[in-house]
Amino acid sequence: MAVANAAPADLGDGDVLVVAHKVVSKAEGRVRRLEAIEPGPRASELSAEHDRDPRVVQAILDESAAVLRADRGVLICETHHGLVCANAGLDQSNLAEPDTVLLLPRDPDASARALRAGIAAACGARPAVLITDSFGRAWRLGQTDVAIGAAGLVVLDDWRGRYDAAGRPLRATAIAVGDAVAGAADLARAKSSAEPVVLVRGVERFVTRDDGPGAAALRRPPAEDLFREGST
Amino acid sequence: MAVANAAPADLGDGDVLVVAHKVVSKAEGRVRRLEAIEPGPRASELSAEHDRDPRVVQAILDESAAVLRADRGVLICETHHGLVCANAGLDQSNLAEPDTVLLLPRDPDASARALRAGIAAACGARPAVLITDSFGRAWRLGQTDVAIGAAGLVVLDDWRGRYDAAGRPLRATAIAVGDAVAGAADLARAKSSAEPVVLVRGVERFVTRDDGPGAAALRRPPAEDLFREGST
Repeated sequence: MAVANAAPADLGDGDVLVVAHKVVSKAEGRVRRLEAIEPGPRASELSAEHDRDPRVVQAILDESAAVLRADRGVLICETHHGLVCANAGLDQSNLAEPDTVLLLPRDPDASARALRAGIAAACGARPAVLITDSFGRAWRLGQTDVAIGAAGLVVLDDWRGRYDAAGRPLRATAIAVGDAVAGAADLARAKSSAEPVVLVRGVERFVTRDDGPGAAALRRPPAEDLFREGST
Repeated sequence: MAVANAAPADLGDGDVLVVAHKVVSKAEGRVRRLEAIEPGPRASELSAEHDRDPRVVQAILDESAAVLRADRGVLICETHHGLVCANAGLDQSNLAEPDTVLLLPRDPDASARALRAGIAAACGARPAVLITDSFGRAWRLGQTDVAIGAAGLVVLDDWRGRYDAAGRPLRATAIAVGDAVAGAADLARAKSSAEPVVLVRGVERFVTRDDGPGAAALRRPPAEDLFREGST
């Protein structure tokens, strides 16, 4: 396992290995050849409207439970996992084969758990594992890395019911620790450097023995989403 | 200046001082007493619909250029700065005085520039300065700290026009470095600890001699916003 081989000798139980999803997707064979994709009527329509390759659009639709917005060539989709992101997370860059698209892992939390177990078996240490992707944001420019899969990390640190420094209850405060760790790890590499794994230290207070609920805990349930079609 | 006094002796030009906006807002007197606020008709209507204090709602409206959503007690607003966030960034927690609200700095980029100049004068070193707040996200649970003000940091690292490891052009990739640094700094403190300043090291490649465009460079222009009322 390449990730275990790349791990330092002093890898510890309180560490977090942050893994770019691309290497996980490749290892899991989540690659489609464009020549094997037959675009359906909706893909043909969207691709004509947005000047995209209809086979790529069909691959995006195949990964999507819903298309939330289609505008200026960008499709904002909800994936079958419940992630909201551009193009359902499909990727065409950083691939050796030009006529393929790379999909997100089928179950990124399961992938993170499997990686964690494999690293523990190979290295003797049992760090937390995050699987990340770069997502855009509705109202801010630039992408940030977020956790799409997790094992052994408290991804959401919920302060509701606790008290602030002045002793008054903290309301509506939960910190997206998983996404903050993902973003911090991205600062440690350059996008062109093809470094798929970053080791994050110093957040052992969020690392747990159990694998926990994974990054699924960071997905806002559709019923709490104020920005869907038809919400007011 | 408290921030300069708290700085370590080896503060360097490549460091980043990340400052929670609350201390900046307090230092700038951005506090309103609720008893001095007279709610207008719109504030009264919204507060009745959403079970909020009408004086707080009036203070939110006074800070807002637009209310994008009002639902279940939460007002998602665009501030006069062009930031989209809950309650126009108003804060009632962590304040010694219970009958006040704390507003965002009037011009957080100007505040960051002034802080940077003050630190340089007091300490001899000229680190970058970020001013941060915790924002929610449309489709993900939990808040992350983001940069609302900046001086001397490349907040948006634009890779468009550059090439990936395989030599193919990177498309639509710009990394929100300012927000990643803000989130990383938040991991270094606990919300209850009232630590307003975090020193971030190791990102000197994004620190610039000039103050630069500030965190304004991270605000998505309304014309590129797919999730406003009336956008499709």
